[in-house]
Formats: sequence, C-alpha cells, structure tokens
Amino acid sequence: MIPTGSKVPDESALPPGFVDRLVAVLPESAIITDPGRLAGYLVEERGLFAGTAQVVIAPATTQELAAAVKVCTAAGVPMVPQGGNTGLVGGAVARKGEVLVSMTRMNRIRNVDPVNYTITVEAGVVLADVQRAAADAGCLFPLSLGAEGSCTIGGNIASNAGGVGVLKYGNTRELTLGLEVVLPDGEIWDGMRALWKDNSGYSMKNVFIGSDGSLGFVTAAVMKLFPAPAESRTAFCALPSVESALELLSLARRRSGDQVTAFELLSDFSCSIVCRHTGGVFPLESSAPWYALIELSSSREGSDLRDVFDAMLEEAFERGLVTDAVIAESVDQEKRLWHLRESIPEAQKKAGGSIKHDVSVPVSRVPEFIGRASAAVRDYMEGIHVCAFGHVGDGNIHYNLTQPDGADAQAFLKHWDVVNGIVYPIVKELDGSISAEHGIGLLKVEEVKGYRSLVEEKLNRRIKAALDPEGLMNPGKFI
Amino acid sequence: MIPTGSKVPDESALPPGFVDRLVAVLPESAIITDPGRLAGYLVEERGLFAGTAQVVIAPATTQELAAAVKVCTAAGVPMVPQGGNTGLVGGAVARKGEVLVSMTRMNRIRNVDPVNYTITVEAGVVLADVQRAAADAGCLFPLSLGAEGSCTIGGNIASNAGGVGVLKYGNTRELTLGLEVVLPDGEIWDGMRALWKDNSGYSMKNVFIGSDGSLGFVTAAVMKLFPAPAESRTAFCALPSVESALELLSLARRRSGDQVTAFELLSDFSCSIVCRHTGGVFPLESSAPWYALIELSSSREGSDLRDVFDAMLEEAFERGLVTDAVIAESVDQEKRLWHLRESIPEAQKKAGGSIKHDVSVPVSRVPEFIGRASAAVRDYMEGIHVCAFGHVGDGNIHYNLTQPDGADAQAFLKHWDVVNGIVYPIVKELDGSISAEHGIGLLKVEEVKGYRSLVEEKLNRRIKAALDPEGLMNPGKFI
Repeated sequence: MIPTGSKVPDESALPPGFVDRLVAVLPESAIITDPGRLAGYLVEERGLFAGTAQVVIAPATTQELAAAVKVCTAAGVPMVPQGGNTGLVGGAVARKGEVLVSMTRMNRIRNVDPVNYTITVEAGVVLADVQRAAADAGCLFPLSLGAEGSCTIGGNIASNAGGVGVLKYGNTRELTLGLEVVLPDGEIWDGMRALWKDNSGYSMKNVFIGSDGSLGFVTAAVMKLFPAPAESRTAFCALPSVESALELLSLARRRSGDQVTAFELLSDFSCSIVCRHTGGVFPLESSAPWYALIELSSSREGSDLRDVFDAMLEEAFERGLVTDAVIAESVDQEKRLWHLRESIPEAQKKAGGSIKHDVSVPVSRVPEFIGRASAAVRDYMEGIHVCAFGHVGDGNIHYNLTQPDGADAQAFLKHWDVVNGIVYPIVKELDGSISAEHGIGLLKVEEVKGYRSLVEEKLNRRIKAALDPEGLMNPGKFI
Repeated sequence: MIPTGSKVPDESALPPGFVDRLVAVLPESAIITDPGRLAGYLVEERGLFAGTAQVVIAPATTQELAAAVKVCTAAGVPMVPQGGNTGLVGGAVARKGEVLVSMTRMNRIRNVDPVNYTITVEAGVVLADVQRAAADAGCLFPLSLGAEGSCTIGGNIASNAGGVGVLKYGNTRELTLGLEVVLPDGEIWDGMRALWKDNSGYSMKNVFIGSDGSLGFVTAAVMKLFPAPAESRTAFCALPSVESALELLSLARRRSGDQVTAFELLSDFSCSIVCRHTGGVFPLESSAPWYALIELSSSREGSDLRDVFDAMLEEAFERGLVTDAVIAESVDQEKRLWHLRESIPEAQKKAGGSIKHDVSVPVSRVPEFIGRASAAVRDYMEGIHVCAFGHVGDGNIHYNLTQPDGADAQAFLKHWDVVNGIVYPIVKELDGSISAEHGIGLLKVEEVKGYRSLVEEKLNRRIKAALDPEGLMNPGKFI
C-alpha cells in the first residue's frame, strides 16, 4: 500500500491554551485528547493515510458545534469534519495543528413524515439507522452502499455518496431536500426545507453537498423517502461483452417500467476471486467474460417481476445479449447472488495488491473505456488482472487492477501513479470523471486539478473563497 | 393589473459608441435596434412589466455570445438573458441602459444518446422540440409545462422549472447533468458532462441552475432522458377534502409501483370557471369541494394501469377518500380531462382580476395551508374566490384568488400587496417557500428577502459577488 501518512502535508502545533478555550464552550465528555482514544479517529479504512491530530471534539448539538467553531476560527485553527470514518480518499484525516470534529454524537432522528415522504436526521446518524427508521414508517430510504452499517448520513452528504440505487433514485445529492450547516465562522444556516419545489435563492444546499467538508459542517438534513418495495427480484446473467450489458440494461429499463433498482457489472476475474477467497458460490453452469447482477423492485403488489424477468431474458437470449442466467427463487439465493458483488473489495484484499480507480464515463462509452483501458494496462504490465465492476447503469466503474499472479504486492503498488497516468487520460478523453462516488479528499486533490479546466478551477476557488475566506475548513483536501 | 413597468428601476443610457463595438464582434443580423422589432422582446407574458432596452442581441453561437459579453463587460453594460420570454416574474425584462440577450438563435440539438439516456441541447431550443427529439429516439424528456410550445430549455434551467412531472422525474435541476455557461467576464465554462456520477469539485452546475440568469448565460446543457411510456392512464376523482387528496396520493404511489406521473389538485371553483369560460366539460355526475387529476404511466407494456386504477379507486371509495371518479377510456377523453387543469389560467383571466401565489409547503401541510390561507383571505374580503390548484404531489400550490362576483378588477388588484401579506406569512409559518417554480425575477425580488434568514441572505450575496463581481448579470432581479 501507499506508505501511511505519506500524503499528509506538514504539521504545526495548536496555539497555547487552545484546548482550555474549547473546555469553556463544550462539556468535558465532548473533548478527547487521550492518545488511546484518539487512535480510532485517526486511522482510516484503507490505511492509506494516518492522522496526527491531538484533539478530537464530538459535540452533541448544533449549538455546541457552533460555539466550538467560533473558538477554532478565533484561534485560526483548521477544522476537519468526520462522520463514520469509512471514507476511501482520506477526506477526514486531521493533522497535528487541526481539530478533528466527530459528528457521531449528533445522531438523533428528528422526524419521519411518511405523508411528505421525508425523514429529518442529524449528520451523525448511521446510514443503516436512517434506512431502518424509514422502513418502520412503511417507506424506503434508498441510499445503500457497502459501509452502510457504520458510515453516517452526514458523510454521505459531504461525499455525495452514490451506491447501487443511483440508477433509479439518484445520488445522495438528489435525495437531499434540506440542510442545516454550521458555517466556518460559527454561524448556523437553517436550510432545513422539506420542500420538493423551492426557488427562493441560489441552491445553497447543492454547494455544500459533495464538498467534502471544505465549506462548513453539515449538521442535519431533510432526506427524501419513497414507497417501500412490496416485491423485488434479482437475476444473475452471463454476458458475452460489455456492449451487451448496455443493451440488456436498456431492455430491462423498458420492460420493467423503469423499476431497475440495481444493475451491476462484474468481470469474470472479479467473480473468480470472490469464489476463491470469500466463499462465493458461482451460480451458473457456464462462465462468460462478464456478468450482470440485476435487481428489479416495485412498491406495487402483484407486479409480477418474475414474469418481467422471464420475458426480458427470453428476448435477451434470442438477441444474444445473455448466454446464461439464473433468477433467485428465495431470499437465500438472492443473498448469495449479492454476495458475489459485495465481497469483491474483500476478495481483492486477499488476491494481493490492488490499484483502484473510481471513475465514471457516459454509460454509452463504458465498453470503449473498459476496452481501451484494459488493453493499455495489459500493454504496460503482463499478467495484470482487470477486476472491473460496478454500477454500469450510471456509468460508474470501479476500474480496479489486481497484481499478476505471484507478484510482490508492495512492488506492484509502486506502479500506482504510472497506472493512474494510463487510466485517467482515457477517462478524460471519453468525457468522464476521475472522481465518481468516493470523493476527492487527500487522495485525488492534486490529480483532480489536472482534469479540471482553468475556468472550472477558478470557479471552484471562488466558491471556496466566498464561503470559507479564512481557509479553515478541511484544508488541503478537495480543493 | 399592476401598472406596466411600475416596478422597473431607474434607467440610464448606453455608453456612446457601444452598439458599434457590438457590430465589431457580431454579425449585423444578430443586433436588433429597430423599435418595431424590439417590441416583441420587451413585453412579457402577463403584462406586469415592460422593458425599455434599446438593443437586443441574438448570437447564434457560444463564441459569438462570449465575444459580445466581453464587449458589454468592458463597457460596464449590464446584460439580461432571455429565452422564450414566457416567464411570469419579469426575470427577462431589460431596461434602457441594458442589453437584452436573446438566446433563441442558439437552438441546435447537438446530440441524442439513447444508450446513455441523454440529450445535448443549446439553450434556445424550445422545450417541445426537446420533447420531440427525445420521442424520436424512443425516449421521454419528462419536463412538461403550459408554455412548452414557446419556452426554451435555457429558460427552464435558469428558472429551475417544475411543471406536472416533478413527483416522478424531479425539477429541471434534477434533469440536468451538464451545462455550458458564458460567465460574466466572457469566459466559457465547459461543464457539459453526460455523467450520472461525478464528484470532481463543487457542483457548479447547481449554482447556475435556478439562478435566473444572475450569474451568467447558460448556453447549452446535457439533459436526462427516460424510457418512453408504453402505456398511460388518466383519472379524475371527486374528493371530500384536501386531506383525502394526500391519502389518495400515497395510495396511488404504492399501488402503482410509484408510476404516478401527475397528481394535480383542482378546487371546485377552478373547475367551474373552466367549464363556464373555456368550454370545459365537467366529467362527473356529482360535484365536490376538490378534485384530483391523476396520471399513471409506465414504459412496461401490459402494465395494466387500468387494473391498478380500478383496484386503487375501489379501496379509495371504501375508505371515503373519493366520492366519484372517471377513468379516461380514450385519448380524446384524456385530453378533455387535462383541459380542465390546463385551462385554469385562461379561465381565470376571463373570470376577472386574479391575485396569484406560486408557493410550496411540505406535502403533509398542504391541507393546513389551504385551510388557513382561505379562512384568512375570506375574512379579509367577503366573496373572494379561492382558485387553488396545482401539483399537490410535490406540495406546490398555485394559490390564486379571483375577485368577488361583479367586483371591479382594477380595484380588486389594488389589494395584491395586502393579500400577499396575508398568504405569505402562513407559507412561512408552515416552513414553505413563496417562490416554488416560477422564479423570483423582478416580481418577488423584494418580498423574498423578507423570507430569507440573514445568514441565507449573506450566503446568497457571497455567491453573487464571487461569480459576478461587477454585478452586470441581470441586475435588480433575483437578488
């Protein structure tokens, strides 16, 4: 792996007496300086970065946070927000001279309104708890991703998280109706609107969503809900090519009445390592270069999704889009199919070193992207494995590369930057994004600049300067 | 009506030689100074405002526009973008010292990609033409509103237009993937991404969408498409109350698998004036205080929407949510039902003076809003008619008031400000918006300030100052 902490910039100490000033505005329990307790906040998911902050604060209310922010701002101390600390790009890593602000104690569900189809939550609520509260009210909160058991909704908003349901329900951005934000000067913006139509000013919420905590602290949000599904069906299909995945997707959208809630692409290599390393059971008789995991769901009872799949797959076989397929007949079977997709990251860890790219291109260009990128990386390194998978329905491919069999993991990972230099220009040529759903953080802050035009870079800097003129919010990340 | 031009601020002349400088960068045909030809650009839809600009430019390309903007900026001349000139709030009214920029000649459809489900259009393309191009490719562009035959997609983006399909497809904001913008300094921002997931910086497109042309010129956009509907069904239901409309909506969403593409509420008075003044045919045997016009549609063939309606209405009758209903059996019948909804604005004109409010509240608070506002305006003026209608599915009510029978229209309209003062505070108390889908423009620019918090006002001003530091874009409107 990349040496821990290698990309963290230089450090400076906190000003003298700073912690005492925090003590004046926060309860003692909200201030953590004990090195043993700090550790959990400083080490991140993939071990790419390690923080060195000496103070973590964990306010329980918006008012406590606002008071603490005023102390930080007055002292010129930078602030780093952190949710469930499950991010993949080092967006929540804090250095010695910074205060790490954990949002996890602001974890109340303020309101569920099944008539307005909205839920009002504080930033620190764990995503799975938002899903559960929605379900308890007979509704669906559709955001769903691997880390849902520990990531927070505030982190999802800060990174504009995607996940598997984007095709039907949109990214976190599209699911967010209103926000409450503590601004870098400690003022509170109450934009907690539960409105589906509102044009009463610039769309401030959209400036804060997906800004990686670089403009302020999202403390609460009003999120959209949907009718709970009454029926869902999952199928796993063998495909001759990526092109056929796109045709199959189009067919599925039309035939199902646009009830495709997931359409995940898996390469044969991805499947094989899941079966080898994480107990995955391959469900088909024959193998193929690519597979699609498709989920249909509907809130309509008796929507006969099995019939939809049958008719759709019959046509797909006839047109040569699918060479083999299985439709799950039980919850158990469904789980086993999803296991094939969800265990890829774990299987990759066990298969050796991985160089990962979270990219997106227009859906229609996914085949060209995968084709060109794979030819180019294989040209560069014989035996490299393309472990591509992801949300092909929204053009977001996790274009991951696993080391050649028997190679040395550390030696392989030294090629990361070179490989980026092969993959990212192809993404750019195809009008794609090198940062699809994981955010920018520390990991991509330098790279992303090279992929933004000068005009766009200027616009980004103007927004940052307008809303965080002192540059105290999560410095060195995102922008 | 409000006296034409009464709200337009003071005027100043264009600098000497200014038109000659435009001639140097634009073809002659793109510059209009002839008073006879100017008129069509200066008078707006409802006659609330009249522009006094002496120069209209109509560039045909982004590059031409960029060159003209540089001339304007160098001379300190403010610019006012205009699309189809169908806006309802005076957002495209230009004064003597300003240049009115008509976007109508930038009207090419650049690309339709049915695999990516996107269409790439220039700002001046008429909305109905976008719909048609999508349909020709077997897709649906769902934005639909009364002015679709003459409004432009650029105007829709500038005002974040809503319309009848928001419940299922979202506002224009949610339909927009990428933008091209000529900035106030004449630079071009190419944000024409056809991506469903992209987190590579602040969401600049969302800053420009819904900003009423106050930050720059939207010149082109990538818009989302959807599978074309294979089946649709419309029903018209008599309801005992607004509360029952909400329960019926929830029932419809669940029973149909969330395939409700329109759910419009009409008051009995709205229906009666449509029948009296615009040839509407009332389709039911019995009358009721409220009606709902419901459209279900699906891209799934054989989705049996008639059966869905039958089952749903049976349950609704049993629960007392509906007292009478008709399901359209032909395209003709469907058109007649939609006529009842679409002719309300025309019928209102014929029914005398109207005081109009385009507001939204959380869906669950619509009954309380209509109840309280109606009691209050009737308290204020005996015999006033509540002509409320609109998109109850997204909480957006056109809370319009028609003069008492036999009253003098001009005398009635003098109460506009007082009536606003009755209605808007109720909207605010219910956490609603006084500007739902028509925008702010000149009409609401002063009022909206009173309904924004000081913090929100500050944030709005910072965005404006960051992106239009000279204040040359559409001054006096929006902010």
